[in-house]
Order: sequence, then C-alpha cells, then structure tokens
Amino acid sequence: MVSCEVYRWRRRGEDLEHRINELEKSLGSVSEKRASERRGRVKAQQALREALAQSESHNSHSTIYPMRPIGTIQSCFSTRNGTPSQPLLVSLARASLVFDPALVPPASLEGLGEYSHCWIIYVFHLNTDIEKLWRKPSQSKLKAKVRVPRLNGERKGVFATRSPHRPCPIGLTVAKVEEIQKDKVLLSGVDLVDGTPVLDIKPYLPYSDSIQGASVPNWVQEDCLLAVASVSFSDVFSSSITSCWKLIEKKSLYGSADEFKSLISQVLSWDIRSMSQRNKPHDTSGADSTVYHLILEGLDVSYMIDNESNILVQDVSLPNNLEDVAET
Amino acid sequence: MVSCEVYRWRRRGEDLEHRINELEKSLGSVSEKRASERRGRVKAQQALREALAQSESHNSHSTIYPMRPIGTIQSCFSTRNGTPSQPLLVSLARASLVFDPALVPPASLEGLGEYSHCWIIYVFHLNTDIEKLWRKPSQSKLKAKVRVPRLNGERKGVFATRSPHRPCPIGLTVAKVEEIQKDKVLLSGVDLVDGTPVLDIKPYLPYSDSIQGASVPNWVQEDCLLAVASVSFSDVFSSSITSCWKLIEKKSLYGSADEFKSLISQVLSWDIRSMSQRNKPHDTSGADSTVYHLILEGLDVSYMIDNESNILVQDVSLPNNLEDVAET
Repeated sequence: MVSCEVYRWRRRGEDLEHRINELEKSLGSVSEKRASERRGRVKAQQALREALAQSESHNSHSTIYPMRPIGTIQSCFSTRNGTPSQPLLVSLARASLVFDPALVPPASLEGLGEYSHCWIIYVFHLNTDIEKLWRKPSQSKLKAKVRVPRLNGERKGVFATRSPHRPCPIGLTVAKVEEIQKDKVLLSGVDLVDGTPVLDIKPYLPYSDSIQGASVPNWVQEDCLLAVASVSFSDVFSSSITSCWKLIEKKSLYGSADEFKSLISQVLSWDIRSMSQRNKPHDTSGADSTVYHLILEGLDVSYMIDNESNILVQDVSLPNNLEDVAET
Repeated sequence: MVSCEVYRWRRRGEDLEHRINELEKSLGSVSEKRASERRGRVKAQQALREALAQSESHNSHSTIYPMRPIGTIQSCFSTRNGTPSQPLLVSLARASLVFDPALVPPASLEGLGEYSHCWIIYVFHLNTDIEKLWRKPSQSKLKAKVRVPRLNGERKGVFATRSPHRPCPIGLTVAKVEEIQKDKVLLSGVDLVDGTPVLDIKPYLPYSDSIQGASVPNWVQEDCLLAVASVSFSDVFSSSITSCWKLIEKKSLYGSADEFKSLISQVLSWDIRSMSQRNKPHDTSGADSTVYHLILEGLDVSYMIDNESNILVQDVSLPNNLEDVAET
C-alpha cells in the first residue's frame, strides 16, 4: 500500500516533469517567436518612420511645389533633333495642346481664341538628367555653365541662356493660336517636341510682353542661325511621299502631302544639324556623303547637304527603328 | 522511512506543480505579448504599405513634377494690395532675387548682366487655395472662369487671363536687370510681392519674345488701368517719414527717404484700390472719407482719395498689425 502510494507520487512526479518539459519547450518557442515578431515590428516601424519622414519632406517642405501638367503637346516634331530652337521660325510647325479634362474644363478656354498668340510654360521632359533632378536634387550635378551652339561651344552661365539643362527645367515659348476646340488648342510656329508636358498657357499681352529697346549681348544679336542655300527634293522622295502619306494622313496635323512637303522645306531651310555633326571633318574629295535624318510626324526624312549648303532631300520612309534614327 | 519517501515525492510533486503553475503563467503572458507584437507588426506593415503606396503615387506618377524654387523675391511690396498688376508700370518698384546657393552657384549668373531684361517664372504662393491645390488637387475646386477687374467683374476663361488662380499657379513677368551680385540679382519695374518663390529666370530675347502685330481682344486693349489725377503729401506725412526712414533705412531697397517718397508717388499714381473698394457707395456729401492703406517696405502708408481722383497721402507709420492692415 505504501509502495503503491510511493509509486503513485513517483508516477505523478514523472508526469509533472514531462509537463514542465513541454511547457519549457513551448515557452522557449513562444519567447523566440515573440522576439521575432518584435524585431519585425521594430523594423516595420523604422521603415514607416523613414517613409513618413521622406513623404513629409516631399509633401510639406515649403520649398517644393508639385506641379501637375494641364495637358500634353502633340507636335509634328517627333524627336528633339530637328525641332527649331526658337518659336515662330517655322510657321508651318503645328502642334495640338491636348488638355487634361480634370484640370481644364472647356469654359476655362473661353476668350483665349481672341488673342493671336499665347505663352506656353512647359517641362523639358526629355532632359537626360531629369529623373535624378526630381528624385534626388541634392545628388544631381547641376551645371553652372552651358555650351552655347551659336558661340561654337563657348560656355555661358545657364541663366544667361535658354538651355533646357537648368536647375528647374521649365521652358517658355510663344506660339500662334490657330483654333480653340473643346479639349484642345491648335497652335502653329511651335518649337516643342511631341509629348511635351505643359504646365500653363497665358495670353500674349503686347503692352507688357513686347519691350521696346530691350538689349541683348552681341553673341545673341549676331544671327548665328545658319540658313541653308537651297532645299530640293529627289525623284525617289516624290514617289515615296505618296505611299508614306497614306499611312499618316488620318492622324496628321497637315491637310495634304504637299503641305507636309512644305513643312520639310521650312524645317530644313535652317541648318538643324548638331554642333558635332556640323564640325565633322569632311573627306578629302570635298564632298560630305553623310546622310542625315529628320523625323517629322513619325516619318524618317533623309537628306544630304553639300559644301555650299544646298540640301537634297533623298527619301521619306517609316523608320525601322525610331530610337536608332533619333540618335544619328 | 517509507512515509519519509512518500513525503519527499509528495513535496517534489508540489514543487513541480508550482513550477508548472509559473510556467503556464509565463506561457500565457508571453503568448499574449507575442500576439500583441504581431498585431503591432501587422499594423506597422499596413501603415508602411500605405505610406509607400502614397509616396509612390506622389513621386513616380509621371504627371507630377516637384519644382524646387531657385530663390526668393525680396520686394518693396509687402502685401498683395498695392502690388502693380503688370510689370514695368512702376519703374521704381525694386526687388532683389536672392538665390538658393545649393541650386544657383555664382557662375550660373555669368552673362545675365549683359541683358537689359529677364523673364521671371514664379509661384503664386499667396493664393488662398494653394495648399489644397498642392496636396489634394482632386478636391480643390478649380474655377474655369475668373472675374476680370478691367471688365468690372465680367467673367472670362482663366486661360484668357493672367489671373493667379489657375490650375498650375505659375506666374510670368518681366523685369529690368539692374545688377548681378554674387548670390542675388537686383531688379526694377517688378510687380512681385515680397516672399515670392522663383522657379526660373531667363534672358529676354527681343527677336523671339517681342512679337510685332500680336493682337488682343478689345477688353484688353482698352486701358482700364485707372490713372489718378494727382498725388500730394500732407505735412503730417513729411514729418513722419523722417523718423520712419531711420527704422527701415538699413534694410531698404532705396537710398533715401526722398527716393522712397517717389516710390509712393509712382505706386499711387494708379488707382490700386480693389474692385470692391472702388465700388463702395460714397456718402451723400459726395466726400469719400475712407482711409486706404498701402504697405511698402513694411511701412503703412495711409491715404485718402477724393471724387476727382486726387490722392492725399496722410501719414506713414510702422503698422500696428500688418495682417489687419493688409486686409483693409
């Protein structure tokens, strides 16, 4: 009986020890999980604080203004190359400013059609450094001086130029107001590349915007825009344009193949080659056999230029690869 | 001996039960803490996801461009009231554009001094609705039409005007470049209020910016700016200005009390009262006994205007409460 009691107590002790063993294991495991949850929580909270601090500095920092474009430019100039460097130079250069309906109800355009010209304030969205400039302004290397094409590359302070590469890459240009439609404005004389985001348009007011006697430095006064001697078209071009026109006709800003041909003439009447293209050493025969490309309304216009600045437009075609062509 | 052994086993059982009791309590407590950590972690992670999603929509949405001003205007116009509504009207209106040294190294201004005028692209930072516009563009009620003062309040589409209340509140004005200093530009003929954030400055180029023959609607052509008949100063003003000048002399944009007095004359030579102030019914005696206020360089200039548009400048003093005065 006694040994029976001893056995019972002993047995109970073993059960209890087993239970303790289990409990200790559970406790260890739960404690470990708790520590892990805690680590995860601390990490998530740190990340949250950082995200909030960053969003704080983005949103409420008094010196950053988030600008939402009111619309986008649809232009005959498909790429930067060939886009005139000043407005009104190419009167046939057409564009359509298509508005964001959430920001620009049709009534906001009432009266704009009574002005002959308007200012367009836009973003230089094709700048190669623009993403970095928006996201990490402190890390983007701002250039204090820029090379000026009409000074053959001499450098001037960026604020003495209209270079696109400026601390706040905003552009200013003037265009002729052709027609106001419900959700867009048709413009001409534009020097804007297709896809340009527009921040604002304002009527041109001669009494405040046209300053009589405003003076500029000599290097700006000298007209260094190179007008070419002549522009002519090859027979190949004349046959190509007919088939090409059919492809773009419906979405074109132009009414006919002939009008589009006049645009090509007007654009090429200025030497639009880049500084590096112009300065390339010609071969000894004196003939520049380089074929240059201009993308207008998505079509690849190829041309050659001789040493007397006579341009021969060779062909027009759908580009095989727009990116490649745009680089040439 | 047997009872001794029973006692030992029994005692041991009690100890073990006590231990189990403790372990169970610990396990309960740790499990509860673990659950709490987990809840906290889940919450923090949810908040993090939301913060990241929001910051994502703020930062990488292709249609929002965060603009950081290149500098701030220090102007003689302390408040909106009295600031001319177009540039160059008040030639003595001086301002200093002080640059952010992080964005504008002195070299970026090299060559700007060779131009007579420059464009200033700025933020309408005093718009009452601007905070909402930046933070919640979808919730801010954009007005498609604005009341035009020179049409006595008739409404025109916002893009047919230069109203500050536009979808993207960017302003455009031109000023005379007086002097380039290391970290600032001295300007004159400005129509900018003190504290205006500037996004960009560009040289004024007559060959592209001055458009001959640009046309505007009749309501813009009619010069509705009301020139006053005369501006004279009271004896009280003449004695007050001497003591007031001593207070502002050191930080003034003007060289002497007399020059500052000329500024007052120039500003008041245009009827700068708001539409509601001008339209207020005069009393039957035909005399308008209202005292108007103009804040220039922080000083409160008080004046009266009679029915023949003759202005008498009564006094100049340090404003008791600039906010209150600015409202009148």
